[in-house]
Amino acid sequence: MSSIKVVSSKLAAEIDQELMGPQIGFTLQQLMELAGFSVAQTITHEFPINKANPNMKKNVFIIAGPGNNGGDGLVCARHLKLFGYNPIVYYPRRTEKQPFYKQLISQLDFFKVPILSQDDSDNWLDYLKPENTLCIVDAIFGFSFKPPMREPFKSIVDHLIALEDKVPIVAVDIPTGWDVDQGPISETFITPKVLVSLTVPKPCSAFINPKLTSHYVGGRFISREFANKFGFEPFDYEGTDQVLKL
Amino acid sequence: MSSIKVVSSKLAAEIDQELMGPQIGFTLQQLMELAGFSVAQTITHEFPINKANPNMKKNVFIIAGPGNNGGDGLVCARHLKLFGYNPIVYYPRRTEKQPFYKQLISQLDFFKVPILSQDDSDNWLDYLKPENTLCIVDAIFGFSFKPPMREPFKSIVDHLIALEDKVPIVAVDIPTGWDVDQGPISETFITPKVLVSLTVPKPCSAFINPKLTSHYVGGRFISREFANKFGFEPFDYEGTDQVLKL
Repeated sequence: MSSIKVVSSKLAAEIDQELMGPQIGFTLQQLMELAGFSVAQTITHEFPINKANPNMKKNVFIIAGPGNNGGDGLVCARHLKLFGYNPIVYYPRRTEKQPFYKQLISQLDFFKVPILSQDDSDNWLDYLKPENTLCIVDAIFGFSFKPPMREPFKSIVDHLIALEDKVPIVAVDIPTGWDVDQGPISETFITPKVLVSLTVPKPCSAFINPKLTSHYVGGRFISREFANKFGFEPFDYEGTDQVLKL
Repeated sequence: MSSIKVVSSKLAAEIDQELMGPQIGFTLQQLMELAGFSVAQTITHEFPINKANPNMKKNVFIIAGPGNNGGDGLVCARHLKLFGYNPIVYYPRRTEKQPFYKQLISQLDFFKVPILSQDDSDNWLDYLKPENTLCIVDAIFGFSFKPPMREPFKSIVDHLIALEDKVPIVAVDIPTGWDVDQGPISETFITPKVLVSLTVPKPCSAFINPKLTSHYVGGRFISREFANKFGFEPFDYEGTDQVLKL
């Protein structure tokens, strides 16, 4: 496997800041819509559903954390529903500070996507049965995670680790528990079967085993000049695809 | 051609209002991102570019009106650039009331997409040469257009009509000059080669000649129950496609 271009956590933070800064002017809503869509599209590549087989597994269990990584997960869930999957969202720590997050929830209600909350902390695993779950989406923590991991997420991750051999995990941008630069160094961490790096892979992606984990880049919203300014070449997405397998 | 489900202007307005109302909670930014993306994706179907042929036409000339139809055009232009086209935007009446429209412009600046303004009213046609223009995107007026058509748009449409045989026009939701229910009844109107209906076709789409005009539906963001409530069945989009040829 050829070396994959990565940018450090510092540069990645600068990229995000510039994209949403006054000069470029992307909004969080736009970037989150495209990022969530790209994760959903990755799932159609890795875990396609066969419309002709009504008995196949279609559940996708999405765990949304309190920040933007969680927001990407909420958008992903909506697109998955439109693509014919049965998404189920577990969102134990809802973000109340931004009205947009409430709207993401309303949109999922509109599509009748079940959303578990902290009230379901005792029974959320009942909705995550290996026999009917195609994959799990880890949209818990991303970029700005710093250990130690707090509850309820530590327990959730421990449960996910116990399930890893039975249900593949798709990690959004940074696998939960990984340090963006140094990889799986915290006490508890996910080992994903699929990693979707957003905009550009971060250094931690060097710690995935390419024989065991498929690596995608998604979030197709930067120009060649911008990529070059941050020391990498833009990715050669095909057609209108919003993700590229690396 | 089988009969295409349509909804009246009144119902279509209700659909938009409900989608962005407090219950469902979509934002304009989200819907515009998906709508603009769907128009860009339509163009890749109808006017594919061949990367192996560097001499082929790649220009797409987008005319953006002052309202939301224009905003869809601005988003479309950005995605076209990412898909390898050379979009050129003519935006003679900029919307200043909503900061988001300024941000859409900043985003195009970021991608170095040329944007002509009212200052280019004498020379905009210099940028629209049939010999290097693949297609024109009519994102001038949509849904809420009522005649008479004012300047500068009347003159622009007159120029486009003179070009119709040389450069195909892609209309966003409603061809400019058409009444949403009654079709091409105003003094001056576009005859598109491609129509992209957003969410659901409007009655005016019955006035296109299916032998001359390809008809797509885009804007994949409603549920089956919601479609049924408004008297139509949802469209059978393929895979992750955001447009469907009808």
